[in-house]
Amino acid sequence: MHVNANGSDPLRGRDLITLRDFDREEIDYILEVAKDLKKRMAQGDMPRTLDRKTLYMMFYNSSLRTRNSFETGMTQLGGNAHYLEPSSVYVPALAGEEEAFKSERISDVARVLSQMGEGIALRIFGDPTDWKYGRGNKIIREFAEWSSVPVLNMLDNMYHPHQGLADAMTMKEKLGDLKDKKITVSWAYSESTKKTLSVAHSALMASSFYGMDITLAHPVGFDLDDEVLGDVKKNVKRYGGSFDKVHDMDEAVEDADVVYAKSWPVKSAIPPEVDEPDWEKAKQMFEDNKDWIINQERMDKTNDGIYMHCLPASRNQEVTDEVMDGPQSVVFDEAGNRLHAQKAVMSLLMR
Amino acid sequence: MHVNANGSDPLRGRDLITLRDFDREEIDYILEVAKDLKKRMAQGDMPRTLDRKTLYMMFYNSSLRTRNSFETGMTQLGGNAHYLEPSSVYVPALAGEEEAFKSERISDVARVLSQMGEGIALRIFGDPTDWKYGRGNKIIREFAEWSSVPVLNMLDNMYHPHQGLADAMTMKEKLGDLKDKKITVSWAYSESTKKTLSVAHSALMASSFYGMDITLAHPVGFDLDDEVLGDVKKNVKRYGGSFDKVHDMDEAVEDADVVYAKSWPVKSAIPPEVDEPDWEKAKQMFEDNKDWIINQERMDKTNDGIYMHCLPASRNQEVTDEVMDGPQSVVFDEAGNRLHAQKAVMSLLMR
Amino acid sequence: MHVNANGSDPLRGRDLITLRDFDREEIDYILEVAKDLKKRMAQGDMPRTLDRKTLYMMFYNSSLRTRNSFETGMTQLGGNAHYLEPSSVYVPALAGEEEAFKSERISDVARVLSQMGEGIALRIFGDPTDWKYGRGNKIIREFAEWSSVPVLNMLDNMYHPHQGLADAMTMKEKLGDLKDKKITVSWAYSESTKKTLSVAHSALMASSFYGMDITLAHPVGFDLDDEVLGDVKKNVKRYGGSFDKVHDMDEAVEDADVVYAKSWPVKSAIPPEVDEPDWEKAKQMFEDNKDWIINQERMDKTNDGIYMHCLPASRNQEVTDEVMDGPQSVVFDEAGNRLHAQKAVMSLLMR
Repeated sequence: MHVNANGSDPLRGRDLITLRDFDREEIDYILEVAKDLKKRMAQGDMPRTLDRKTLYMMFYNSSLRTRNSFETGMTQLGGNAHYLEPSSVYVPALAGEEEAFKSERISDVARVLSQMGEGIALRIFGDPTDWKYGRGNKIIREFAEWSSVPVLNMLDNMYHPHQGLADAMTMKEKLGDLKDKKITVSWAYSESTKKTLSVAHSALMASSFYGMDITLAHPVGFDLDDEVLGDVKKNVKRYGGSFDKVHDMDEAVEDADVVYAKSWPVKSAIPPEVDEPDWEKAKQMFEDNKDWIINQERMDKTNDGIYMHCLPASRNQEVTDEVMDGPQSVVFDEAGNRLHAQKAVMSLLMR
Repeated sequence: MHVNANGSDPLRGRDLITLRDFDREEIDYILEVAKDLKKRMAQGDMPRTLDRKTLYMMFYNSSLRTRNSFETGMTQLGGNAHYLEPSSVYVPALAGEEEAFKSERISDVARVLSQMGEGIALRIFGDPTDWKYGRGNKIIREFAEWSSVPVLNMLDNMYHPHQGLADAMTMKEKLGDLKDKKITVSWAYSESTKKTLSVAHSALMASSFYGMDITLAHPVGFDLDDEVLGDVKKNVKRYGGSFDKVHDMDEAVEDADVVYAKSWPVKSAIPPEVDEPDWEKAKQMFEDNKDWIINQERMDKTNDGIYMHCLPASRNQEVTDEVMDGPQSVVFDEAGNRLHAQKAVMSLLMR
Repeated sequence: MHVNANGSDPLRGRDLITLRDFDREEIDYILEVAKDLKKRMAQGDMPRTLDRKTLYMMFYNSSLRTRNSFETGMTQLGGNAHYLEPSSVYVPALAGEEEAFKSERISDVARVLSQMGEGIALRIFGDPTDWKYGRGNKIIREFAEWSSVPVLNMLDNMYHPHQGLADAMTMKEKLGDLKDKKITVSWAYSESTKKTLSVAHSALMASSFYGMDITLAHPVGFDLDDEVLGDVKKNVKRYGGSFDKVHDMDEAVEDADVVYAKSWPVKSAIPPEVDEPDWEKAKQMFEDNKDWIINQERMDKTNDGIYMHCLPASRNQEVTDEVMDGPQSVVFDEAGNRLHAQKAVMSLLMR
């Protein structure tokens, strides 16, 4: 929906599609509210901010944390969330791609739902987009274009902004002031090559607001999106900290306060850079880098750093059981903070 | 469930399976409550009429508007609706058609759900009924026979009564007193022949309560159900207005205040009129009438009429984008009124 | 989760996986609360005990009563339940059985959900367990091991404890003091051999707390689990009554106050007793015992006994229509009591 900002309530009515659309003051505001809501909830004090309001959640892909944190969040705020699978609602389609009796144009779906509830959230990446980089985001933006209520991105191939918010919230809880703290965002191996770039992008964006020293690490050929990195660097310039890129995992984790290691796809092996996904090429590149795993030896090189992951993790591929279940891992707090961060977003945007 | 009328609360406990079971006074009562609820909601005043009550919604077919308007409606009234797919609840079956470990007799399903919640709503047409005209309605009536709570029809091949209510509500909002206003209910082309007769039937029934001049239009061979039309004509006789039938779309829309154009199936090509659906015959008849489309030229012949459709529409088949997205289209208000009309129905019937 | 008992609130925080983990005083406490909640609800008085709390319900198998009674129960208590199918949440898997991009280790799923909501309920038996007896229970116990909120068993191949509670509640309503009342728990024929042992086990366990005279009846070869029967006999010794086993249905129902007849599988034809399920052997044994059906002639031999079944019943296989829909049948009260018994469980455990 179109921005409808005003002095006292600057986030009301906004969409949250990527953190790139927000500045530090706005991110701070969301995280402050998240912290408040979490603290109040621990005392049994839950405001009914969204009393009997409805969030429509449309999942083109499966979900554990996202679905349950949004739905539980709406319940806790006094409202309700609908779990919608495209197959059960006439598949929303872009103009020109409709199929009679099966699909419905997104402009119509968005306008209908806007008549009834207070927010629309979407997850779409991978197979439903033929693995075209950017296509899921395009569909989400099409919803936002036509919706008169806020549209929330629950994960596409480019962004996972609510994960980024939970990441920042968790880092602040564990490390306090993030200024000059070192975060290493690294690629890691998984036997499945079907991943998204979104988590790495959003973790980098989230870190870039807080003056952190950012190290991006990945094998040669696993580049992220230059435009996103451009915005990360702009933030670093504006808010302080540094940005560095290396191609060696051991070097990357050295003295890190935060290790965020996660598999992502080979961008040059998926459309639009190629016509069809080249899974064979991707598989070969993945297999050549099986040693990109976070194990205790690597965690020992950090500055007693915390281990982060959006989950689900490919255990003993991206990370060993020892690290995942060990004392440096904060992944379950991080997952729990999805709830609190999203309650803040919904409270501020959907009122 | 069986009618349990009483003076002060005449609709409490009733089923809503078709508008044919109601008279004008009752329809008026529902629409008055719908208008009240809508106006109060706009002021932030939502009564908790169905506080923590449950509506079971069983969908044999996909749905966008119906599912979300009923579920959001229950939330706004303080209750909750369950989205149930037959495959996940043991498929409800008529006596003699059960399958061990897969299905459960409808009499049992209805009696069990009646023990727990306050309403049962069903959608069933098309493939789950082998396209037998009347079979979905029979199944819904079987639920009603055994349920001790109200049963609501969310669409079968014969009726879509909640759509009819939203249609009447929308016409009243846009046109005021409907007396002597002309509504044209017309067949329109779609590349899919798999449609229901219900929307046309329900729009005609809804119009027949209000003294409207009704024009039914369709190509030769696309007849509606004579029994339903009989009731429409009875209402016209009782409540005023007129009923006319033509086989020319241009003639039909002339001076119309309302154009309601929607595809429906070839009744003579589906059971029980034939043993098996004759899709080939239907397809040929559809293709012979591709020019039955609502375009701006036709809307220009109307009395600055409004364009209505239950959605989803087959864009550029039933209606051009220009009309659908143009100033005479009221389809999104109409979709939004589903919410308000159904909240009225549930408030009055399910208390 | 680990027991966290204390004097004033002895059940708070407990799991409910099998009635074997509870003693009579605890069962009584649950049933007393169930009775209170039912009586208060009939007067329109519903406490908001679980105001905006969340129960995660994970169904590996279809469900009518269980899903709707838990979800309606949460609504009535002021909270909300999520209907989760494993395929839509990354399939929870035991350590060592994960599949990248498809599944997630149970320890992670349980710890994540514990961060957000207040209870986790699971149903798993049959195909998702390759029909291995005990495997569903193992998976539920693995959830309980890692969850910090109560875990509820919604049916595995061994236990259906919430059914057992509703059974005891119903018997008390219909018969008053259960001491010295005779219950016959009998196998019955169904054309499907794919059944669970859980309902018989739970009905026997529930009966064993109340000094009932228990008759177990089944054809030779249809033995139940010796360990469960051991606990039933221990209770009989402790709380009074008697335990008897016969292989003749007519003899079994003689003078019974309660007839609970239900099909269960051939335990010796499913793993671990054999490597692969031997459906052919099971089918033959089932077909040899087609006369194990509850008909009116058999009900006439009882002490004007009540007929019970967890539903769905295989009509005219396990039981004739005449009995099922006749005056001795209490199956719909029994189904309705699922709601009240489970509200009691959730009120006591999940607060």
